[in-house]
Amino acid sequence: MNLILLDEHDLIDASRVTLTDTRAAHLLDVLRVTPGQAVRVGLLDGPFGTGTIETANTGSVTMRCEFETVTPARPPVDVLLALPRPKVMRRLWAQLAALGVGRIILTNASRVERDYFDTHVLTEASYRPWLIEGLQQARDTRLPQVSIHRQFKILVEDHLDTLFASGVRLVADPSGTQSMMDALASCDERVLIAIGPEGGWNEFELSLLGAHGFSRVGLGPRTLRVDTACVALLSLAHAAHASARVAVPNRDV
Amino acid sequence: MNLILLDEHDLIDASRVTLTDTRAAHLLDVLRVTPGQAVRVGLLDGPFGTGTIETANTGSVTMRCEFETVTPARPPVDVLLALPRPKVMRRLWAQLAALGVGRIILTNASRVERDYFDTHVLTEASYRPWLIEGLQQARDTRLPQVSIHRQFKILVEDHLDTLFASGVRLVADPSGTQSMMDALASCDERVLIAIGPEGGWNEFELSLLGAHGFSRVGLGPRTLRVDTACVALLSLAHAAHASARVAVPNRDV
Repeated sequence: MNLILLDEHDLIDASRVTLTDTRAAHLLDVLRVTPGQAVRVGLLDGPFGTGTIETANTGSVTMRCEFETVTPARPPVDVLLALPRPKVMRRLWAQLAALGVGRIILTNASRVERDYFDTHVLTEASYRPWLIEGLQQARDTRLPQVSIHRQFKILVEDHLDTLFASGVRLVADPSGTQSMMDALASCDERVLIAIGPEGGWNEFELSLLGAHGFSRVGLGPRTLRVDTACVALLSLAHAAHASARVAVPNRDV
Repeated sequence: MNLILLDEHDLIDASRVTLTDTRAAHLLDVLRVTPGQAVRVGLLDGPFGTGTIETANTGSVTMRCEFETVTPARPPVDVLLALPRPKVMRRLWAQLAALGVGRIILTNASRVERDYFDTHVLTEASYRPWLIEGLQQARDTRLPQVSIHRQFKILVEDHLDTLFASGVRLVADPSGTQSMMDALASCDERVLIAIGPEGGWNEFELSLLGAHGFSRVGLGPRTLRVDTACVALLSLAHAAHASARVAVPNRDV
């Protein structure tokens, strides 16, 4: 836990919070805070700030918080992911939030098992704490927006232009001859990366995505499992974006 | 399983194998092979080839194999990894092999718990099948070479020049202002990436690595868990290397 993230409902008045959960345990047992000490905090989907410890007792910490005025920008990368099996998705939530995604769009696809959609891993009550765990790891406050779509064609044809209004659309596929770095050279727009199921997108899905503006990118000759590919593709997209920001320093992404 | 990897001891004569394990199950249940059919195979640490099915019965497959003459090159990236906790290391073996590493050097560090070294996850009998699983996923034949070092200083001072004789040495650390892409721009040498424990390398370790030729690279402002960072760093190193190969097409890495 590299950042203590606070939620609106943690506030007991305009500027004070009392924590009694794993965040309190972290402050007490790992950081060993004492009254008067200042720790870095963040407000979920809001600004960073400083928490000054008022009381630190067994299992409970009260802090007075001062927040900055500016909320950090959402990460400039979004992901459209064919739903992996629940055990894999369970682990991906925190990784996606840590790597940095503005939006997570989960979809059905031909090679996705239908019963993957019936798992508790897709309930907000389950995944929200995992997303927050990833943000606290990566020191970010911006909670990824999540939507779940059981019909791929309806998602792509009817909803995608709302979910991802403008930017570069890429689909990862072994047939892609362009690398992520080339596809995003000097790109400072938002990026949406579509990542298929184990076994890949089928031809219908690839051509529907192609018809809706997705260019193919490849990861080279090695075929990776979906969870490894997600981390690889998001890391490359962030690296390409960071290079572009260096090249075009005046644009705020 | 995207490639059936064969070992010398699978051969029942100069060119024939009989499989009865998970590879046979994959051939029978997933690929549903029939006699006469050809499948792509690889010889562990050897060339690729073609296996022609002779018999395919319940639980057992016999193939006649023809191998190519050239063994593929080892991946041009090696990793020096402070030993993560066993549960994480358990999952990393296959991921490292799939991403492509020539060598895995595991080491102690100040922030590594000593009892991490006492796990069965570090016995060759445990990790070899996981490495092979990763190779079969990524379609590679080159088994990473593994060595385990309980003394960081002795490793760096006495053994590293043998394990990694020449090439670019990088250490991942939040203090690194250089990105992986910049550090490896136009680099077609082997690369060794040192990745610290959760909590990072300490100052002594960073300066010892620095004194032995390691330059610092950063992954940007987000702090990732070690397993996520491994995948991110190796993906970036491979992407940088691939760009360099395009830029310098006559050099074989």
